[in-house]
Amino acid sequence: MKTRNKLLSYVDKNMPNLLSDLQKLIHQPSISATNEGIDECAILVSKMLKKSGIESEILSLGKNIAPVVYGEVKSKKNPNKTLLFYNHYDVQPVEPLELWEHSPFSGKIVGNKIFGRGASDDKGELITRIKAVESHLKIHGDVPCNIKFIIEGEEENGSQHIDQYLKKFKKKFSCDAVIWEFGYIDTKNRPIVGLGMKGLLYVELSVKESVRDVHSSFAVIIKNPAWRLIDALKTLRSSDGKILINGWHDDVLPLTKNDLDILKKEPFNSNDFKKEYGVKDFVGGKNNLEAKKALVSGPTCNIAGIDSGYTGDGAKTVLPSKARVKIDFRLVPNMDPKKQATLLRKHLKNNGFNDIEITILNAEAAARISPNESIVKVTCESAKEIFGDYVLNLSNAGTGPMHSFVHALNAPCISIGSSYIFCGMHSPNEFAKIDLLKKTTKCICVLLENFSRSKNKN
Amino acid sequence: MKTRNKLLSYVDKNMPNLLSDLQKLIHQPSISATNEGIDECAILVSKMLKKSGIESEILSLGKNIAPVVYGEVKSKKNPNKTLLFYNHYDVQPVEPLELWEHSPFSGKIVGNKIFGRGASDDKGELITRIKAVESHLKIHGDVPCNIKFIIEGEEENGSQHIDQYLKKFKKKFSCDAVIWEFGYIDTKNRPIVGLGMKGLLYVELSVKESVRDVHSSFAVIIKNPAWRLIDALKTLRSSDGKILINGWHDDVLPLTKNDLDILKKEPFNSNDFKKEYGVKDFVGGKNNLEAKKALVSGPTCNIAGIDSGYTGDGAKTVLPSKARVKIDFRLVPNMDPKKQATLLRKHLKNNGFNDIEITILNAEAAARISPNESIVKVTCESAKEIFGDYVLNLSNAGTGPMHSFVHALNAPCISIGSSYIFCGMHSPNEFAKIDLLKKTTKCICVLLENFSRSKNKN
Repeated sequence: MKTRNKLLSYVDKNMPNLLSDLQKLIHQPSISATNEGIDECAILVSKMLKKSGIESEILSLGKNIAPVVYGEVKSKKNPNKTLLFYNHYDVQPVEPLELWEHSPFSGKIVGNKIFGRGASDDKGELITRIKAVESHLKIHGDVPCNIKFIIEGEEENGSQHIDQYLKKFKKKFSCDAVIWEFGYIDTKNRPIVGLGMKGLLYVELSVKESVRDVHSSFAVIIKNPAWRLIDALKTLRSSDGKILINGWHDDVLPLTKNDLDILKKEPFNSNDFKKEYGVKDFVGGKNNLEAKKALVSGPTCNIAGIDSGYTGDGAKTVLPSKARVKIDFRLVPNMDPKKQATLLRKHLKNNGFNDIEITILNAEAAARISPNESIVKVTCESAKEIFGDYVLNLSNAGTGPMHSFVHALNAPCISIGSSYIFCGMHSPNEFAKIDLLKKTTKCICVLLENFSRSKNKN
Repeated sequence: MKTRNKLLSYVDKNMPNLLSDLQKLIHQPSISATNEGIDECAILVSKMLKKSGIESEILSLGKNIAPVVYGEVKSKKNPNKTLLFYNHYDVQPVEPLELWEHSPFSGKIVGNKIFGRGASDDKGELITRIKAVESHLKIHGDVPCNIKFIIEGEEENGSQHIDQYLKKFKKKFSCDAVIWEFGYIDTKNRPIVGLGMKGLLYVELSVKESVRDVHSSFAVIIKNPAWRLIDALKTLRSSDGKILINGWHDDVLPLTKNDLDILKKEPFNSNDFKKEYGVKDFVGGKNNLEAKKALVSGPTCNIAGIDSGYTGDGAKTVLPSKARVKIDFRLVPNMDPKKQATLLRKHLKNNGFNDIEITILNAEAAARISPNESIVKVTCESAKEIFGDYVLNLSNAGTGPMHSFVHALNAPCISIGSSYIFCGMHSPNEFAKIDLLKKTTKCICVLLENFSRSKNKN
């Protein structure tokens, strides 16, 4: 216990360095959507790893593909167990700029918060991992197990090449478990230990009716693509949110008794959500338990965007030539995105909508690990030790390339992190809470020790 | 006949002046949507009237209201009959600029065409009226009847103050008939003599579900305003174009035998339309006669624009906070826009869509004059004399403030003009055909004489 105390007090003392390093990362733009500062940020991250005692190299698949920063520390005392950290150095775009109170690249500290794009997602999370490893190296001159880092630069742009990287560098990346790139902390300061991510099928449907926009007086005879699209959309989903595509739910597995036990224990305050987003009730009038079930295991059919014709202010009498909608379908484990896309195609065809063009923009399968994996116990124990409590969550409602990791590396992935649940991720005024950065760094320190002592299966 | 020949050959000789004056008008931007050049154009038009021997003054209702250019010539030989020309000096916006082959304000002449915003709509039409009156003054030192001009500056922005102008200057504007601001010429060079315009109810429907855009992973529980709007829209209209709003058609009058006779005689080549706009078939599979009927007397429910969420390229997983649609309903005679708006409100309420906000952006009643008005015979005879043929049309499918004129001035309005039916009105590369400008000027010359000799009722 004495060495653990030394380790944790090193984290305390090292906080000014953690914060100044996080500021350096925030200062460096790294927007994957526009490629701004991507290469520069990869170099910065690689140098930062080295400064903390982690060997690092920059992996590349060629031009126009963001590099992956790789990091590695071999353990002297336990060279047979390897933990891999998956993170990303890229961030979301910063627009709308006028809504930021401080520059998005300022890293300004106000009280317990550090502001900036990436402060939480994912530069804040990354720094907790780096500083945890550094702490071990400083105090013990060693790490409790082998450590690997995969830090990619396209996460905010769909992780389009992570599969290729995982395939090409499969041996280099081999490991026994993966710590996922982020983890939420709820409003009661409990880390949410996540066992999975939903999948995603993102499509664009478009219809064209005439070669150009037409004076709307001709709407009596010339077809309107917006109406056509609406007719098609109305066949996809009922008013209370049920997906009506034939066979859509065929592969959905029911929650097991074990799953339900975890789900029931998970706290969920629907009022937090309703207050945060200013909504009165949930889709289909869902109550607390139904909402929790839906977040963990409910497929969605969400209109992410729709546009046709004149969308400025005031009146313009135009009959649009084309209409377009973007739909994201969240998928749950055992749903194959390709198969679901085929079902969508068939559905539209069978309903007479052959004229609707379908473009698939993203397709990722869901991933969910068994709660019996030893990494789950390790993570929960570590969280409990540092935070006093934790929440076990069957699956995050969002999507990430977790399936690719589980599939390629044959290793369980688990989410644990420092991101306050309403931290403005992807939005203006993103921040990280400094006390949570510190606790998470400590939690990762402890997790490394607990992991090194664990069996591979519970 | 000798003086008529002199009159018409003056028009021939005067064409270079007509074209250079039209170019001057085109050079002067006058975009009512942005107020660019409105006052300057009013002054230019007023000067041009005076140069042609027409007395002119600029009428104003105050700041932020475009002035009306008024023009008048008293007839010495026939001071008891008055014909009023209604035109407008404002134009549509010129965007998208990159699609124009010549600058929109160039007035460039290429062969038989003069290009530029307003070349047809409505600066080209206006110049034919001015030059016809000028021709009479030059040849006869008199006009066949009193002439008045109302040239407004807000037509392309919904003619929002024309009612007020008509009310305030009712006495000044009093007349026996109105020549409407435009008239189409079909692909066989026949002027279309129009007896009416449809009405319009233009509304914006909007829904808000949450205080801000939300990560789309929450779509399982947080309502999507785009879906909500689509659910509401689907209750308004059937897939084959029928309006489903309760009572919507209650006030629609059936076409009389007389109407149908006119309609049947009207040539209509559905292939012209299909080719021009690149469409295969018409709404609801309408054939030629049905399409003609619909254009003249079919109410519409057109989506002029819809938008919600992310509408850029690529994928963004967002759950929008609000959605908005713009709908223009074309109305036919005897439908009261206010009553129709009430029916829409009731319909949405009765279908449970109390949360949908309705904003009325424009409301104009339809107008249609009797084919027995003497101005109809006068116009048709004049068109026949100059063009060799004409087409009688019960109603244009579009909308203008004709109802306001008929109502305020108690005078019949008729459409006759020079605009080639596919002249790119409201679009890039708008043009007028020079031969049609000349013929229309001659037609107006003759019309003035025929009108002066006509009785007020057939």
